[in-house]
Amino acid sequence: MKSILMKSLLALLLITNAAFAADPLPSWNDTAPKKAIVTFVEQVTREGSPNFVPPAERIATFDNDGTLWSEQPMYFPQAFTFDRIKALAPQHPEWKEKQPYKAVLEGDMKTALSTSERALLEVEIVVHAGNTTEEYAQIVTDWVATAKHPKTDRHYTEMVYQPMLELLAYLRTNGFKTFIVSGGWIDFMRPWSERIYGIPPEQVIGSSIKTKFELRNGKPVLVLLPEINLIDDNVGKPVGINQYIGRRPIASFGNSDGDLQMLQWTTAGSGARFALLVHHTDAEREWAYDRTSSNGRLDKALDEALAKGWAVVDMKNDWKIIYPFEK
Amino acid sequence: MKSILMKSLLALLLITNAAFAADPLPSWNDTAPKKAIVTFVEQVTREGSPNFVPPAERIATFDNDGTLWSEQPMYFPQAFTFDRIKALAPQHPEWKEKQPYKAVLEGDMKTALSTSERALLEVEIVVHAGNTTEEYAQIVTDWVATAKHPKTDRHYTEMVYQPMLELLAYLRTNGFKTFIVSGGWIDFMRPWSERIYGIPPEQVIGSSIKTKFELRNGKPVLVLLPEINLIDDNVGKPVGINQYIGRRPIASFGNSDGDLQMLQWTTAGSGARFALLVHHTDAEREWAYDRTSSNGRLDKALDEALAKGWAVVDMKNDWKIIYPFEK
Repeated sequence: MKSILMKSLLALLLITNAAFAADPLPSWNDTAPKKAIVTFVEQVTREGSPNFVPPAERIATFDNDGTLWSEQPMYFPQAFTFDRIKALAPQHPEWKEKQPYKAVLEGDMKTALSTSERALLEVEIVVHAGNTTEEYAQIVTDWVATAKHPKTDRHYTEMVYQPMLELLAYLRTNGFKTFIVSGGWIDFMRPWSERIYGIPPEQVIGSSIKTKFELRNGKPVLVLLPEINLIDDNVGKPVGINQYIGRRPIASFGNSDGDLQMLQWTTAGSGARFALLVHHTDAEREWAYDRTSSNGRLDKALDEALAKGWAVVDMKNDWKIIYPFEK
Repeated sequence: MKSILMKSLLALLLITNAAFAADPLPSWNDTAPKKAIVTFVEQVTREGSPNFVPPAERIATFDNDGTLWSEQPMYFPQAFTFDRIKALAPQHPEWKEKQPYKAVLEGDMKTALSTSERALLEVEIVVHAGNTTEEYAQIVTDWVATAKHPKTDRHYTEMVYQPMLELLAYLRTNGFKTFIVSGGWIDFMRPWSERIYGIPPEQVIGSSIKTKFELRNGKPVLVLLPEINLIDDNVGKPVGINQYIGRRPIASFGNSDGDLQMLQWTTAGSGARFALLVHHTDAEREWAYDRTSSNGRLDKALDEALAKGWAVVDMKNDWKIIYPFEK
C-alpha cells in the first residue's frame, strides 16, 4: 500500500518535472560539445539502454582552474598565496631579501612566478603551516569575500564559467555526483565550493598539506604541518580519485595537460565514458592560450583529445556567455 | 507554476511517507540509547528548532570493526590478511622461517597476533604491494564471498549488527550522509560497503597504502606501493575526517579507545552533537570485553563517555538481536 502510493506520487512528480523542462544548458550553443554531452547523459540514464549506468556509479570529476573558473594572469590560488605573503610580511623581515617573497612584496609578479616549482611549493608550506584547519578556512573565506581580480575588478568567485555551472547542475539533475579534482589546494577550495558550484567539501579533492590532531587547553584542533600530503595533479589525479572516491568516474572535464591522466583513467573504464577539454580560444571575453602557455598548458592532452575523439569546447564559438555577470 | 505544482506534490509525498512510518529502529529496545538517538535526530531535523542542522551538514561517522560488525577472535581485516599469507606462501619459501608468517602458516594465531605492531604493518605492505587497485578489489571480493568465521561458520559480512544497519538507514532517511571512518584498510572495505551497509566507496575512509599511476601497454593502472599513506586510527581519525570530508561530523559512533579522538572532534563542534559507544557486554550472543581486551579495547573512551554523558550501548540489554540472521 505504502509502496504503491509512494511510487505513483513519485512518477507524477517526475512527469511534471519533465513536462516543464526547459533547455538545461542555455549558455551553450547548439554545437558539437553540447550535443555530445546530452547524447552521453541520455545514454547512461535511460533504463534499458545498453550503456545504462546505475545512479551510484554516475561519478563526474571536474578540474577547477581553467575548467570551472579562469586561471589568468595567474592561477587564482597563487594570487591568494601571494596576498598571504603580503599579509604575513611584517612578521618576516627576512623576506625582503629572499625570493620569491621579495618579488611578491615588490609587486614583480613576473619574477615571483618564474621561481622554481620547488620554491613555490615551499611558499605554500610556509603560508599554510601552524594554522589550525579552522583558522585557515576563515582566512580563505575572508580573502574570497574581498579580493578582486586585477583585470575584471570582480571577486574571483564571480569569474566562474556560467556554461559549466549549468553543466554541473544538469549532471546532478540526472543523478550524477559531481566532484572537483584539482591541482589547487583542497583547503583553498572547500570553504566556498558548495556556495559557488553546489559541490560540498566532501566532494572536493585537491593538493593538500598534512595535519596533526592536538588538544589545546582540552579543545581538539587539527594543525597544518609543514609537509605535503598529496599533489593532486597530472599522475596525481587518478591517485586522488582512487583515494577519495574509490571508483572510476564515467565522465571527466579538464582544460590542460595536468588533466590528461584523469581523462585517460576515466575513459579506460568499460561502458560509456565521456571526456571533455575546455579550450581557451576567446581573447576578448576571456583569454586565448594553449600549447605554449605557462598556466594551463594544453598540448599533449589536446593531441590525445583529437586522436581519441574527446569533446573539445571552443570557448569562443561554443559558449554564448562566459561569466554569470554577463547575463 | 512549475515550482508550486512540484512543491505540492513533494509535500504530499512527504506526508504520505510520514503517515505510514513504522518504528525505524525495531531491533533496539526502548532504553536510553535509542531514546537519545531519536531525540537527537528530531532536534537537528525539525525546522525552527534551535538545534536545526541543514541537511548538507548532517554528517555521521561510524567506526567499522566492533561498531558495525564483530571483531573477535581477531579483527576481520586481519583474518583476510592472514588468509592472503597462506595464499601467497608458495611464492615465499622464506616465510616458513620468518615471523609472523611462520606462525600464520602453522595456524598458531596467538603467536602471529602477538607480533609487534610494526611487523604486522610490514605484513600489510607485503600483502598489498604490487597489485593494481582493481586486482586487489577482486581478491577482496572473492574472499568475502567464500571465507567463513571460525566460530559462527557465517560469512564475515553476515556478522554485521542488525541494530546498526537500522541506525544507518534511519539517519539516511533523515537526510544524514553516513561515512565509515575505520582503522581498517580502505581497499578491504570499499568492495562490499555499499552492498552491506548502503555506504558507497566515496564515503568509506580507512587506513591506506600509497598508489602510483602507470601506463601498462597503453592501459592506465594504479599500482599499490610498499608505503603507508594514512593510519586512520586514534589521532588519525580526525585527520582522515578532515582530509576526506572537510567538515566536522555532528554525530559519531565507535566502540573502542581507537575512536576516542573522533568522538572528541565531533562533540567539540558547536550546536547539537551526538556521540555513542557500543559496549560489548553479551558473551552469549556475541562477545564480552572492554578494558583489558587486546582487540577493541574500551577503557579511556568509556571513562570519557561516562564523564561527558555520551550514549553507551549495552549490547546485552539494549539490542533485541545482534545479527541479521537471527531474524
